[in-house]
Amino acid sequence: MNPPHIAYESGVLRLIDQTQIPRAIVVSRLTTVEEVAGAIRGMKVRGAPAIGIAGAYGMAMCAAASAAVSLSAEDFMNRMTEAARHLSAARPTAVNLSWAVNAVLALLAQRSLAGEQPAAMAAVVEAYARKIHADDIETCRRIGDAGAELLAPDGALLTHCNTGSLATGGYGTALGVIRSAWHAGKLKMVWVDETRPLLQGARLTTWELAQDSIPHTLIADAMAAHFMRRGLVSAVIVGADRIARNGDTANKIGTYGLAVLAHAHGIPFYVAAPSSTCDGATATGDDIIIEERSPDEVTSMGGVRLTPADTHAANPAFDITPAKYITAIVTEFGVLRAEFSQSIAAMRVCAAPRDGVTTR
Amino acid sequence: MNPPHIAYESGVLRLIDQTQIPRAIVVSRLTTVEEVAGAIRGMKVRGAPAIGIAGAYGMAMCAAASAAVSLSAEDFMNRMTEAARHLSAARPTAVNLSWAVNAVLALLAQRSLAGEQPAAMAAVVEAYARKIHADDIETCRRIGDAGAELLAPDGALLTHCNTGSLATGGYGTALGVIRSAWHAGKLKMVWVDETRPLLQGARLTTWELAQDSIPHTLIADAMAAHFMRRGLVSAVIVGADRIARNGDTANKIGTYGLAVLAHAHGIPFYVAAPSSTCDGATATGDDIIIEERSPDEVTSMGGVRLTPADTHAANPAFDITPAKYITAIVTEFGVLRAEFSQSIAAMRVCAAPRDGVTTR
Repeated sequence: MNPPHIAYESGVLRLIDQTQIPRAIVVSRLTTVEEVAGAIRGMKVRGAPAIGIAGAYGMAMCAAASAAVSLSAEDFMNRMTEAARHLSAARPTAVNLSWAVNAVLALLAQRSLAGEQPAAMAAVVEAYARKIHADDIETCRRIGDAGAELLAPDGALLTHCNTGSLATGGYGTALGVIRSAWHAGKLKMVWVDETRPLLQGARLTTWELAQDSIPHTLIADAMAAHFMRRGLVSAVIVGADRIARNGDTANKIGTYGLAVLAHAHGIPFYVAAPSSTCDGATATGDDIIIEERSPDEVTSMGGVRLTPADTHAANPAFDITPAKYITAIVTEFGVLRAEFSQSIAAMRVCAAPRDGVTTR
Repeated sequence: MNPPHIAYESGVLRLIDQTQIPRAIVVSRLTTVEEVAGAIRGMKVRGAPAIGIAGAYGMAMCAAASAAVSLSAEDFMNRMTEAARHLSAARPTAVNLSWAVNAVLALLAQRSLAGEQPAAMAAVVEAYARKIHADDIETCRRIGDAGAELLAPDGALLTHCNTGSLATGGYGTALGVIRSAWHAGKLKMVWVDETRPLLQGARLTTWELAQDSIPHTLIADAMAAHFMRRGLVSAVIVGADRIARNGDTANKIGTYGLAVLAHAHGIPFYVAAPSSTCDGATATGDDIIIEERSPDEVTSMGGVRLTPADTHAANPAFDITPAKYITAIVTEFGVLRAEFSQSIAAMRVCAAPRDGVTTR
């Protein structure tokens, strides 16, 4: 039995280090905002919902530490604002991280205005972080069930990256749909893209699917088109890091190509994500910052250089899939269809305000 | 200065082991047909034209050894036929290997009918193998020059796998076009697909481009679509392992997806290959056998397991690109356009008979 992949207690955030799976199950013990930001940047914790949860716990950690040293309410707020800035900067593309820390800040601003003291506010932040975590698990289950209903029987789903328990509070988004479809008897097989360069599919999605005994076949990313052409892929399902108001979706590099290929083969292409991934502040995909990561992730593996010593590599971590290639977006409020600008706007009315805190 | 990547002398075939590049330049010394077949199967030598050349030298090696032990003409022919069968079976998809060994057999059948003795026939086979090798280099230069003329100035070409000197007798097919375009001042940059699982792009193409000081950027295969969408790819150029009579093309897995993506982005998609890659015996891509290689190539790298221990992986080594996605096929006889069934048939009239030996 593995430990929980993310757990917060008494100022300590424990994470299973996802860079080590499946080689080893190593729990990282984080006690400062800097360590949390570093773990997010280094992808010890990754996946849009999971880094949102880690960010919220990072804020709780900062609040507890700040309250313990009897800061003034003003200094407390300054320190929380600085922590939010630091955490948000760790990874720019996924909206969930900045959403979570800004939601904490907005909540604190209300409490601060009401004259509440740091110790009380710290307790509020911790409770709020736990609620974000618990809500995410519940959200994933709803996404999973809504997505499973969409699928035809005997499906062979192709997925990219890891969108499972590890990437969320638990259960998963696209992988949540896969789990629900499996439990509903609608799924025959999962094609798992290995997802270069960091191999989240080969390392993490296979690991989660094996634990649930869901049949799966790993492929190199460039094999997807071949199996689509052979009629062996009934639908593609992926997660999302940020969804613009018009439905354009940022997700792990390689997603856009899959969407174009699915379109060319008449295969449905589904995005599964919590409503909080829909970013009201982003009009279209053109407005989304694409994180560029170190070329070493492409040119080396496990510290071993794959290429000639001076090879230059590009390493955009995400790409943008235009809404026109997306068959449906599966959220905890149900299935959104084109015209996405309308369906997303309608969904956002259901979704907000969340806990009285409106941050978008 | 590196040794020649393939050289035959006095019954010994020397190959730079391509599985070791760029980590080390190791020359394999092969003295039996079994060793040559093993080197082809294990991809110490790879690339459709290069394995054809290696196969021809393997036949020369067998002929020399058989002549040295004074076999009867009949036993000599039996042994050569067995060697041809063994070599052809090493890799099934590329036509060049079976073409080369069958061309040697056909030549021997003529000489044998004329009453020629094994020693004389062995000399003929060696001369013929050397001619296949020399012709291939000349063919590549013609392909390179014909292809370079096709390209618009300031091109940014995207290529897949390795189609360079290492994959041919020398110079390269698609990489030959890249070299010629570079020398003609028409090329700005090359996008190099890393080409999972065996990373021929990351290991070999980068290595060749660096030696020629041609600017290049390595990308993970799944990044290609992203850069196409950004307008940063002016054309895609790849090699071929077998081209059917209708133009359908077998090439390294991942090629088909690139062709669909290029089509979707209005980007020309070129195939560069010697006329001998066009297989008159194959009507369409559906008739081409796709080699399935060991799943270990996907689940491990450099002997290190990437995935959970029991992960099942698929590993088709090639895919089929339907002719409709191919803008042009560049051969040593010039540029073929659709309708490919006509342009290929016309080209085959130019190409045959080759050295009086018609094998297709």
